[in-house]
Amino acid sequence: MSIATKPVRYEHGGVSFEAYAAWEDSSTAARPIVLIASTVMGRSRFEEGKARSLAELGYVGVAIDLYGVDKWTTDIERARGWMDALNADRALLRDRLLAALAAARGIGAPADPARVAAIGFCFGGKCVLDLARAGADVAGVVSFHGLYDAPPLPPADIQAKILVLHGWDDPLGPPDTVLSLPRELTEAGADWQIHSYGHTVHAFTNPAREGMYSPAADRRSWQAMGNFLEEIFGSR
Amino acid sequence: MSIATKPVRYEHGGVSFEAYAAWEDSSTAARPIVLIASTVMGRSRFEEGKARSLAELGYVGVAIDLYGVDKWTTDIERARGWMDALNADRALLRDRLLAALAAARGIGAPADPARVAAIGFCFGGKCVLDLARAGADVAGVVSFHGLYDAPPLPPADIQAKILVLHGWDDPLGPPDTVLSLPRELTEAGADWQIHSYGHTVHAFTNPAREGMYSPAADRRSWQAMGNFLEEIFGSR
Repeated sequence: MSIATKPVRYEHGGVSFEAYAAWEDSSTAARPIVLIASTVMGRSRFEEGKARSLAELGYVGVAIDLYGVDKWTTDIERARGWMDALNADRALLRDRLLAALAAARGIGAPADPARVAAIGFCFGGKCVLDLARAGADVAGVVSFHGLYDAPPLPPADIQAKILVLHGWDDPLGPPDTVLSLPRELTEAGADWQIHSYGHTVHAFTNPAREGMYSPAADRRSWQAMGNFLEEIFGSR
Repeated sequence: MSIATKPVRYEHGGVSFEAYAAWEDSSTAARPIVLIASTVMGRSRFEEGKARSLAELGYVGVAIDLYGVDKWTTDIERARGWMDALNADRALLRDRLLAALAAARGIGAPADPARVAAIGFCFGGKCVLDLARAGADVAGVVSFHGLYDAPPLPPADIQAKILVLHGWDDPLGPPDTVLSLPRELTEAGADWQIHSYGHTVHAFTNPAREGMYSPAADRRSWQAMGNFLEEIFGSR
């Protein structure tokens, strides 16, 4: 198996972004695009690895850039500041995500712009839920240990199927949010599922997060995502 | 594919029971046993069909008998009376389930008595949770649209991994039970997962239950069960 990658530059609101696309290049067959929205840290090796893992599954994985090319960091305090700014302006976050979606759709063969999904981790989980809430034309979104607070924006018709993969003991997703998210998504008429994992906290997919990583929840959630992508895209 | 079936007679507390075993008989390789605990209606064609479906997946499916051979009915009021009697005596229910488990373990080749799981539907979902709560030596249990009230029995060490497949709008499993079950299972130290499906009510796996059956939740839950059985048994 041979994985090709390329940077994908795009602009929005005067800011330059660079996504990272990966696909398996032994065939030229068109295949679905899966965006990856990042954790608080922004596009990093973690998301680039997920793009390559999605490439191995037969998709074009596109790790999107949430903060812009001049805002790549390994300093969590700086990253948190940029995340907070987007949390405080969910309309900007939405529009930035829609710009990333448009850029991913435009990357050319073998990506099929008619078949797009999005996954996200931590803050990226909120991003993909916001993409669904914005009524974006994506077939499905998957949130891994995401954040569930709804944006203060007028609700749109949710078109995406939604899969939420949740650590029951995640302090960022306490039990009351496990009731409010279903209420919101049910009222919106969305096709939704939430998988809750016991004895599991935040960041359960990330081996670098000691004490939070859960090999079992990582494996189970990735498999659930794979099943979900197969469901929405049929045979690849 | 050729499916063999046989009745499995057993006794408990002076009552005679008859389970229904099914397996794929083109090979004699030993394989895991999966018990099927029935809905309120007792062992019926629905559970027998599930036993054959499990046989097709490479297991020995055993649809167990909850009420006894003189209590097979298509009359839901009669069935509900028998279920209520077991609900009122959870120690009897537990012991009857343990007797069914022992009988299934004893059915002989190709069933491997060292590898056993249990699934259940509706009342059967409660049964398999009670089997886990009793500390039974089973590798895993799967509840489909089950009932979550804990029995008034001393807690045992839960050995089984637990997968709960839940319709969010099931009036028999309202949101407060979706909080109390995780609390109970977390305190017991069990390895648990709950998958909740939106816009889904009770009996979502049963095509005969008009207005309740959900093809999407039926397919998703069966796939989740298949993944879970593969996880606990490894390659079959």
